[in-house]
Amino acid sequence: MRIGILGTGIVGRSHAGRLSALGHDVAIGTHDVTRTLTRNEPDPMGNISFQEWHKEHPSVKLLPFAAAAKHGEIVFDALRGQFSLSVLSPLAAELDGKIIVDIANPLDFSRGMPPSLLVSNTDSLGEQVQRALPKARVVKIFNTVSAFLQVNPGDLAGGDHDIFMCGNDREAKETVRKIAAGYGWKTVIDLGDITNARGTEMMMPIWLRLWGALGTPAFNFKIVK
Amino acid sequence: MRIGILGTGIVGRSHAGRLSALGHDVAIGTHDVTRTLTRNEPDPMGNISFQEWHKEHPSVKLLPFAAAAKHGEIVFDALRGQFSLSVLSPLAAELDGKIIVDIANPLDFSRGMPPSLLVSNTDSLGEQVQRALPKARVVKIFNTVSAFLQVNPGDLAGGDHDIFMCGNDREAKETVRKIAAGYGWKTVIDLGDITNARGTEMMMPIWLRLWGALGTPAFNFKIVK
Repeated sequence: MRIGILGTGIVGRSHAGRLSALGHDVAIGTHDVTRTLTRNEPDPMGNISFQEWHKEHPSVKLLPFAAAAKHGEIVFDALRGQFSLSVLSPLAAELDGKIIVDIANPLDFSRGMPPSLLVSNTDSLGEQVQRALPKARVVKIFNTVSAFLQVNPGDLAGGDHDIFMCGNDREAKETVRKIAAGYGWKTVIDLGDITNARGTEMMMPIWLRLWGALGTPAFNFKIVK
Repeated sequence: MRIGILGTGIVGRSHAGRLSALGHDVAIGTHDVTRTLTRNEPDPMGNISFQEWHKEHPSVKLLPFAAAAKHGEIVFDALRGQFSLSVLSPLAAELDGKIIVDIANPLDFSRGMPPSLLVSNTDSLGEQVQRALPKARVVKIFNTVSAFLQVNPGDLAGGDHDIFMCGNDREAKETVRKIAAGYGWKTVIDLGDITNARGTEMMMPIWLRLWGALGTPAFNFKIVK
């Protein structure tokens, strides 16, 4: 399948690398291809530069945002939440009818750590993205675990933990469920329509605090019932 | 131990009944004792009337709020979140130095179902309660599971799931940890100071949606790491 991934950070790279290894035709989208390719310093979290990552994943294309959006039959929002709307909104035509896998969390770092949310409670980034792209089919998923676990759930407790999904389009959710299953997710809990993104985005505050309390982002929630 | 429980709803009754059965001297606090005792209709959720419940738990006293607050060496906030501050603030003198077990969630039913939150993201009810009672020692706990599970964790998967606690006073948290252990909680995760109540209160949106998706409130989160 042709997949476009918007965002060159650790989340975008994780999905691009994994999907490419699974045989998909993947293009990552960025604002300025030349600038992204010439950056050779690790990021503030210590992740290798895009240049270095790209050498290890030569089959993943790097394209301008619009070209990556056009490339993908399915397009991932792996942008920082604060930039999702400004990048996605001008791409409405390219994204018409497509499935948008929205992984972004609307983190607000302006008030100190741990970050709070730019939108929450009575709205969500997932809903904002769906409103900005009314003809796209937005599925919110993967935003409640670390980038590594998103695509390698089996590496934690043999995959015995859960991921949440929501969106307005049933068929889009079934397609995304298959992608998640391909990563190794055993349980994908469908919460319902896109307004349920409020629920999963508002897990960020407890997730960030558990990262602090546990000393590692390598954890996830399992629903015990 | 002498325990005061503010609130006559299902959460207050659950703790009162369980603590009384564990041998504690429990008084429930209410606004108007006569009115609470004369109500004999089930509540909108189908729970039996307080009158009927009280017949089954005759050793639990029913007192006005201030007398119940005075009675307790430890006092539980089992009020509806929207009323917590207006009930607790005038009791600051009675609650001076005491441990407040804050279970309330600031649910806002005015915007339809599922409820949103009255305070979130950059503040929390737990913090508001601590500010309203600066000399009390507020511990936020139990607010992420159903009333029944709060006091009977062993009835779900043999207790193999987690509860979260936060508060500014280390000694108060250790006392509350013992109460939780007495109920059967195996893992109580200490998140840190009372600002972490933002994290647990903001789990309400996903909790309410999972209740809908799973069709039962008899579930909980287990942290897999």
